[in-house]
Amino acid sequence: MNFTIKQALIPVTEGYTTLDVQIVDGIITAIGENLDVIGTKINGKNKLLLPGFFNAHTHSSEMWQRGIIPPLPLELWIANLYDFTPLDTEQIYLSALGTGVETLLSGGTSVVDHLVLIPGKELETITTAVHAYQKLKIRAFIAPLIHDESLSASLPKGKSLLQYQSYFRPTAETLAILEEAIIKFHRPEAGINILVAPTGIQLCTDALFNGCSELSNRYHLCRHAHLLETKSQEKLAQEKYGCSAVEHLHEIGFLNEKTSLAHCVWLNDTDINILAQTKSTVVHNPLSNLRLGSGIAPILKYLQAGVNVTFACDGACSNDGQDLLEAIKIGSILHNVTDFDYQTWINPRQAVEMASLGGAKGLGLEQQLGSLTVGKKADLVLYDLQSLSLLPRTDPIGLLILGRPVNAVNCVWVNGEQIIDNGQFTTVDIEQLKTELFNRSQWQIRGASPSVEQIESHYRQVMGL
Amino acid sequence: MNFTIKQALIPVTEGYTTLDVQIVDGIITAIGENLDVIGTKINGKNKLLLPGFFNAHTHSSEMWQRGIIPPLPLELWIANLYDFTPLDTEQIYLSALGTGVETLLSGGTSVVDHLVLIPGKELETITTAVHAYQKLKIRAFIAPLIHDESLSASLPKGKSLLQYQSYFRPTAETLAILEEAIIKFHRPEAGINILVAPTGIQLCTDALFNGCSELSNRYHLCRHAHLLETKSQEKLAQEKYGCSAVEHLHEIGFLNEKTSLAHCVWLNDTDINILAQTKSTVVHNPLSNLRLGSGIAPILKYLQAGVNVTFACDGACSNDGQDLLEAIKIGSILHNVTDFDYQTWINPRQAVEMASLGGAKGLGLEQQLGSLTVGKKADLVLYDLQSLSLLPRTDPIGLLILGRPVNAVNCVWVNGEQIIDNGQFTTVDIEQLKTELFNRSQWQIRGASPSVEQIESHYRQVMGL
Repeated sequence: MNFTIKQALIPVTEGYTTLDVQIVDGIITAIGENLDVIGTKINGKNKLLLPGFFNAHTHSSEMWQRGIIPPLPLELWIANLYDFTPLDTEQIYLSALGTGVETLLSGGTSVVDHLVLIPGKELETITTAVHAYQKLKIRAFIAPLIHDESLSASLPKGKSLLQYQSYFRPTAETLAILEEAIIKFHRPEAGINILVAPTGIQLCTDALFNGCSELSNRYHLCRHAHLLETKSQEKLAQEKYGCSAVEHLHEIGFLNEKTSLAHCVWLNDTDINILAQTKSTVVHNPLSNLRLGSGIAPILKYLQAGVNVTFACDGACSNDGQDLLEAIKIGSILHNVTDFDYQTWINPRQAVEMASLGGAKGLGLEQQLGSLTVGKKADLVLYDLQSLSLLPRTDPIGLLILGRPVNAVNCVWVNGEQIIDNGQFTTVDIEQLKTELFNRSQWQIRGASPSVEQIESHYRQVMGL
Repeated sequence: MNFTIKQALIPVTEGYTTLDVQIVDGIITAIGENLDVIGTKINGKNKLLLPGFFNAHTHSSEMWQRGIIPPLPLELWIANLYDFTPLDTEQIYLSALGTGVETLLSGGTSVVDHLVLIPGKELETITTAVHAYQKLKIRAFIAPLIHDESLSASLPKGKSLLQYQSYFRPTAETLAILEEAIIKFHRPEAGINILVAPTGIQLCTDALFNGCSELSNRYHLCRHAHLLETKSQEKLAQEKYGCSAVEHLHEIGFLNEKTSLAHCVWLNDTDINILAQTKSTVVHNPLSNLRLGSGIAPILKYLQAGVNVTFACDGACSNDGQDLLEAIKIGSILHNVTDFDYQTWINPRQAVEMASLGGAKGLGLEQQLGSLTVGKKADLVLYDLQSLSLLPRTDPIGLLILGRPVNAVNCVWVNGEQIIDNGQFTTVDIEQLKTELFNRSQWQIRGASPSVEQIESHYRQVMGL
């Protein structure tokens, strides 16, 4: 689809200006005044045009448990989550759609889905998510979540004699499934990307990390993992490696410029330097870090060290939404309480750049995505500046990032294809999605969790509670 | 208006149940199964009924500057705000409406407006806000913001020889204006309440505090003030009183069970005990505390000490929105990072009680408002549980408080009068409000602020930056 956006408000160094933007074959071909209309004419008047943001770490299927898990730290929260009945592929499809829809409605055009796989139906799960994202047309980075240690291995042993159960499948088999998914589905030009994505040091052996690195090198794939989300994981890394998790991952060669790492709450200054040297990207999930009591990631330190940082929602039951603007807002203002010197605080324009260009960098795509630049792909969002939540008129980016935008996303294009037109989806039927989500669920509260009860006393002991 | 809500989902100890609620003459007269329809029948099916929340501290006119002030700590942010041209009464009217509308759209039925007064037009400002809230029919607690020291007095002197300018009006005259407003407008039964509301220790003499206490006693009014929002104010209190601000306010008799105190970030354990003893209420403004880098208020300590805590948005340019559900969410999960023991964390039901009954307590109205109880006033909110943001169905209160509800408020009543019906306002024309907000503003960015430049080097020095 070719189109020309007329008279949109666009940020420039000195403030804002009103410009036209031409898009031909999915590429931004011109930005300027009084451009000819090529293709469809889009009225940009009283609207703000920005590059699409990246929801750079989520787990789509957690949508089915959002709102229901009580306030618990990550390790007990996961145990609680394990008690739910495994999902079926229809649910996987609907929650991928739902996650994509909410991402798009909050300015995101790309989603990194660290996809939880149904045991025994791993390839089917990936296939289903691919279909959902193809249907929706959001740019998808599917990162099949793999590990090769059992859940009990994710807790530090402390002084206990805790024995870990072995994992149900050999590492090589897990890697073989991943490779099959890569061969079948990795089609960057069609908007579907596969990432290698070991869960993190808490559930993965070096063999799995190394297997992932090898696949990433062979197929030119990005790498993704959780990293030091909790204090418990910091302790675990010391037990497991005798050094920090970052030092270890660096030593085994997992960190490079195409590696993005979710959370990064418990890093020390040496670790931060390693991230800067290896050009790894930090994916900041402020809402889940608060919700799970993981801590406040030292984001201002990362920025000062030159580490690339971008934002994400994390899975919908540790947040418990998928509103990227909320994550960007809280991920910006949260750090004003960790550093008294306001000269280091993140400002709204910087937050926009982190959410767009920062996301693209983390996926090795900064030449193709992440800014309003001639020659880049047209992943674009047009915000309605006449939305009540963005009035009165002041600084549009300030309103968008520091405010609470509601019904503000007016049009969205990914790769030049329109997904939202005047607030309405063109690719999926939202009423039908709502009906299916409604019909496959019920209102309930959560009773005691057997899995939590099993590990709680050990958890309290190793954490000194 | 008499009405009966049929088959609404209502929280009970064991989970949720479906019940009918009768409202006669603004009072909840029955809650039960299969009640007769009295008056209008309201379909509560697939909707959650909760008592209305309190937006327990805001400054409505700040709506005109939302999104535009750069990231700065309170003291410099206020200086920046002072540079804007004073508002006119038409603007006061529109921003009071806008603040009320956004409060209602996020579950609030009461607003405490710590109203910034136009110098020389104090009574006109109050009159205008009263008219706006009467038009909208939200329950209003108008707290005219008064002080009797000049802005420069709000900074600690440190080792400097800073001289304070004197305030332009004698204290007695300010109190006289307040008394006139009380006599003219304080009509609790009609939903308009006046509070005595000195700004806080940073800009008020004891004479002003005592004058407010006297008016509060004479006219049976609630008291409201900012308290220890920043570290700078903690230092100032020591300079000014040689003790903590709380000790001083207690000594002069300002604290009682009808006193609500916004922020309370920098209190020590002795201070907390004083708040508990005096039954004062803490109004938690988590978003502005982050935005201005004020710090994280020790809310879990307050709760453990038995201090009543409720939530608020604070003024729209320190937040920069008026979405009460956002304030409740962040005000709940933020404290999970200050205390590792998850057993003390705020859960969603507790947050609902803090936002409703906690708000009512802070205004001495816990016998009349704040819960779904027969005999209480009908300040009610019906949430649409079929909103995409509240699907799939899990725990409705968990979804509402921990999620990111969008377009979820379906019906609102205050004092039994319907303000929102099926998502639409019945009392004000929202399109007209948007047009007026749009026409009286323009897109712009903020250049250097002369007032900030004037005090910045002193601020950095006293704060050790």
